[in-house]
Amino acid sequence: MTVHAYAAHEPGGRFEKFEYEPGPLQPSQVGIDVLCCGLCHSDLHMLDNDWGMTVYPFVAGHEVIGIVREVGADVRLLAPGDRVGLGWQCGSCLACPSCRSGQEHLCGESQGTCVQRHGGFASHVRADRRFVLPIPDGLKTETAGPLLCGGVTVFSPLVNYDVRPTMKVGVIGIGGLGHLALQFADAFGCEVWAFSSTPEKEEEAYAFGADHFINSRDENALALLGGTLDFIISTVFINLDWGAYLSTLRPNGTLCVVASPAEDMPIPAFPLIVGQRRIAGSVIGSPLMERQMLEFAARHDIEPEIELMEMSSINEAFDKLRRNEARYRIVLKNEG
Amino acid sequence: MTVHAYAAHEPGGRFEKFEYEPGPLQPSQVGIDVLCCGLCHSDLHMLDNDWGMTVYPFVAGHEVIGIVREVGADVRLLAPGDRVGLGWQCGSCLACPSCRSGQEHLCGESQGTCVQRHGGFASHVRADRRFVLPIPDGLKTETAGPLLCGGVTVFSPLVNYDVRPTMKVGVIGIGGLGHLALQFADAFGCEVWAFSSTPEKEEEAYAFGADHFINSRDENALALLGGTLDFIISTVFINLDWGAYLSTLRPNGTLCVVASPAEDMPIPAFPLIVGQRRIAGSVIGSPLMERQMLEFAARHDIEPEIELMEMSSINEAFDKLRRNEARYRIVLKNEG
Repeated sequence: MTVHAYAAHEPGGRFEKFEYEPGPLQPSQVGIDVLCCGLCHSDLHMLDNDWGMTVYPFVAGHEVIGIVREVGADVRLLAPGDRVGLGWQCGSCLACPSCRSGQEHLCGESQGTCVQRHGGFASHVRADRRFVLPIPDGLKTETAGPLLCGGVTVFSPLVNYDVRPTMKVGVIGIGGLGHLALQFADAFGCEVWAFSSTPEKEEEAYAFGADHFINSRDENALALLGGTLDFIISTVFINLDWGAYLSTLRPNGTLCVVASPAEDMPIPAFPLIVGQRRIAGSVIGSPLMERQMLEFAARHDIEPEIELMEMSSINEAFDKLRRNEARYRIVLKNEG
Repeated sequence: MTVHAYAAHEPGGRFEKFEYEPGPLQPSQVGIDVLCCGLCHSDLHMLDNDWGMTVYPFVAGHEVIGIVREVGADVRLLAPGDRVGLGWQCGSCLACPSCRSGQEHLCGESQGTCVQRHGGFASHVRADRRFVLPIPDGLKTETAGPLLCGGVTVFSPLVNYDVRPTMKVGVIGIGGLGHLALQFADAFGCEVWAFSSTPEKEEEAYAFGADHFINSRDENALALLGGTLDFIISTVFINLDWGAYLSTLRPNGTLCVVASPAEDMPIPAFPLIVGQRRIAGSVIGSPLMERQMLEFAARHDIEPEIELMEMSSINEAFDKLRRNEARYRIVLKNEG
């Protein structure tokens, strides 16, 4: 079998048609014919080698929806023809405490779907069976992909930090991650506050489930919120006035960052200490968390707002994401 | 009644004999004749007006052990002659969600024992009944005082973050707070790691309950710990290489800061996110937490190592604390 993919050959380079032979299928692997694959900000970081771990030729893509073509000898619960998804992670060590406690996404040897192997902007992709997820019937092939990375990234902290329906939840940054966070927090029954530096997104934020919209460039608006929110998810890649956001939290509140500013975050200790607040990091989610997220999304009609493009328009799609013009998530679709 | 106290009259000033009339006892108040009062780093911050909330004449002291002299008409469970303690907090609003949920220490109107009122380096001090705690018989009058602020400050996060006996706990800074943190973590059944920039404290750290001692100036030693600790309490007032300490934590681990560096803490987002770690703040504890801490300390023979001085040596005591020469906590004792 020959895989038809798109690969970049240098940091920030253009994607070109690229073919490779995947070799024999391993006993624990699932081979997936790709129908659609979402484009995530991490793909752009990988293209640019921002994290120093990209190898070229680089095939991006880690929000795959496809059909199982073949399964290895050890694969039990998946069969050819099944509609499945694959997110950021496609393998882990199985031996460490994280793996053994069902937190495979925290494994020190976590294998990324497009990290030092070929990802999902291709005709075909493979992964360990544990990371290949059945897609519930209620989810659409075109829109389910972004749930597998962007979706679980914002869903997981709501579960892990025990966010309850009586709480007030803030979402900083209303983009690919943020517009999903608004939907999940709304479906959790929370009062939802959207923070964005783009006032034009206000009406859309309400449509995604926000109850309130705050222009984050308005310092007074933040100050007026003082001590009212229980939980905040920050989805932005830049440093903000973290002290101001901490002060919008109630005592014992948590600010959870799911996107990493390149520079250190300057955190004032005083509001952290006197309010017993927390700054937490969160990263994707375990396979079990992904499964719960998919079922929850299907049950609550949660889906990303996407722009569907042909896989052959991959360079146009990356350019659009780089210009911050994706509204809200781009999905690339294989022809035919 | 005249209260005989020691007061400073300007930031960083010397303490001088100072008398005041406390006026009529309020119905909810307890009047305490002071036997001993511990000296805490916060007293020094208050003396210097580091937090901009000191009024002069300033009577410091908020780790009081004394005998109830009189109680107000509404006081039920305390009576003259009882041996009691009083920590940092002596009042709160009773109406806010924090007060109503038993977390009075997070009340926005929390009243500090020596904040804009006269504290415990005196013959007598008063407080709202809710913050006056019976001292279990197993605790000594001379050593129980520092438990009421320093003790609960390091005990509370162990409880709030569900530290369990199977965990590995780090303590950064082996001073007034840290030497109590070692004892509590040891009594929790944990494997205890002491981090100190003073190698001479190694043997004492073991005596307080540490299983391991790390010279925190040794970067390699920190790196070797990579990903093994579950929980760290930092008791130091300066910025450290927080990224290095975050990396000593397991996935889902927490670094809890109970002392506030004056400058923003530079926190790298990457180890926070990929390990799903947390930086948390914690401040003293509720009255209920203080009661549990006192009972726990009595049951486990936990007490601070103190240097007992006469109350009249208050200036010498503050000088010693300022020179970082207190080993490990100074307690001032009233004559007679």
